[in-house]
Amino acid sequence: MSTLNAAFIGLGTMGYPMAGHLAEAGIAMTVYNRTAQRAQQWTRDYPGSHAPSPADAARHADLVFICVGDDNDLRQVTLGDDGVMQTLAKGAVLVDHTTASAEVARELDAASRKQGSHFLDAPVSGGQQGAQNGQLSIMCGGDEATYQRVLPTLQHYGKAINLMGPAGSGQLTKMVNQICVAGLVEGLAEGLAFALNAGLDANKVFETISQGAAGSWQMVNRHQTMIDDQYEHGFAVDWMRKDLDICLREAVRNGTPLPITEQINDFYREIQSMGGGRWDTSSLLRRLQKIPT
Amino acid sequence: MSTLNAAFIGLGTMGYPMAGHLAEAGIAMTVYNRTAQRAQQWTRDYPGSHAPSPADAARHADLVFICVGDDNDLRQVTLGDDGVMQTLAKGAVLVDHTTASAEVARELDAASRKQGSHFLDAPVSGGQQGAQNGQLSIMCGGDEATYQRVLPTLQHYGKAINLMGPAGSGQLTKMVNQICVAGLVEGLAEGLAFALNAGLDANKVFETISQGAAGSWQMVNRHQTMIDDQYEHGFAVDWMRKDLDICLREAVRNGTPLPITEQINDFYREIQSMGGGRWDTSSLLRRLQKIPT
Repeated sequence: MSTLNAAFIGLGTMGYPMAGHLAEAGIAMTVYNRTAQRAQQWTRDYPGSHAPSPADAARHADLVFICVGDDNDLRQVTLGDDGVMQTLAKGAVLVDHTTASAEVARELDAASRKQGSHFLDAPVSGGQQGAQNGQLSIMCGGDEATYQRVLPTLQHYGKAINLMGPAGSGQLTKMVNQICVAGLVEGLAEGLAFALNAGLDANKVFETISQGAAGSWQMVNRHQTMIDDQYEHGFAVDWMRKDLDICLREAVRNGTPLPITEQINDFYREIQSMGGGRWDTSSLLRRLQKIPT
Repeated sequence: MSTLNAAFIGLGTMGYPMAGHLAEAGIAMTVYNRTAQRAQQWTRDYPGSHAPSPADAARHADLVFICVGDDNDLRQVTLGDDGVMQTLAKGAVLVDHTTASAEVARELDAASRKQGSHFLDAPVSGGQQGAQNGQLSIMCGGDEATYQRVLPTLQHYGKAINLMGPAGSGQLTKMVNQICVAGLVEGLAEGLAFALNAGLDANKVFETISQGAAGSWQMVNRHQTMIDDQYEHGFAVDWMRKDLDICLREAVRNGTPLPITEQINDFYREIQSMGGGRWDTSSLLRRLQKIPT
């Protein structure tokens, strides 16, 4: 079996360790990052080379992975002048790990097909820690054959990997996740604000209720940092704002009323204007605590 | 050791099996229920006798348990003409399992002390099934000595039993629970409404995301019935309305803004006017699905 050639575009908090796992698995890697110094650093940490553009990185790749910021970044590194589509080989697969719109996923699927290659949208969850430990959840959209072909490679950094349906379905699933998180975290924030104002021992409260009907991953993993007013970790409000904007646009398209999600997106906008764009999403509590009563 | 005498006031969905567990444990039971036929039925199912009034039930009791509907019912069976306080013996303990206000808990604590007896507020969670299986969570408020004295008896139907602080603290903890549930269930409902409108396989979506940051007891235990549009089970909207009204009044008192909880209470009011007072709280999805878009 000949060595697999892969490109990885976007060496951010997530992409950097993800590309690293592929390199460590013996895949011949070519990486690209907008800030070239970071790509150079990556080649000092891992075996592989870096390319001056997405097109150059993708030129000889069997698999091209992307993990960038948003729809605009994604269109630029794929459909732009120096983008991946300029060189993506016939039969190659483009795998997009960006949390983006379902629309751009369908666009890239169509563009890939047009040149005889394949596309998979594959947003992840599990955060920086999941990327470092190789324990990400990966929600895929695309056809079965493409999914099966890429699956063994995804397993180098993914744990729960699922094909959700045709192109765009990975993104739609990630949106469901973010909608559920928004209501959940606000409920937790209101509950904790109440517990503190009521003079309860908040730790004891959550020990007591976290096994029952109010229990959640967020309650188990965030109540302590919320009690400690610590938000310099986790999933940043700026990213949540981006994701919720995507959800709300798609909800208009598919006719879903999201009254509370919409309002929580506004709460996150307030947190941004409080200077909290980099705070964890659980900082909804800090916002509540600033409201004059 | 002489036999423990206990009274149980209120043989509803929860109280009926709870009193049954005490009878089966060998405690000499006297029960009271507003609808006398139900008390008569209870004495056919379990060893024990029934009394014509709360005062009569409590007359010779070491421990008096109450599990009724709301603050008004509770005041009536305790402070009313035929209420427990008429006969509650010096040294006896009054244990209230009603989900009620912290205010009425403090009132009953004061009234109990005045006649040399003791009080514990002890709202439960775990539902009808928890009451039947003896697996309830019990959140207690009161003093340590009273709690330790009652604990072995509570263990006949409770699993996770905790003393949360002074009188009223059990109720306040239950309120935190209900506030967390409200936001959580609306988030889940909005996520599921979106998933269905997006054409996703909703079962597969929840299998995929329930282990991560969006995961919750509600997601695991309610997604299937929500997908099936089944709400004839679980915790009724009428009861949730009552509980959230209590939360919102207490939040005004302790200065906690609960913007989303307040709005979800309004959503539940809408469900009541749709005829859904007996539906499970997860019927927030059905409300979303009725909104014209």
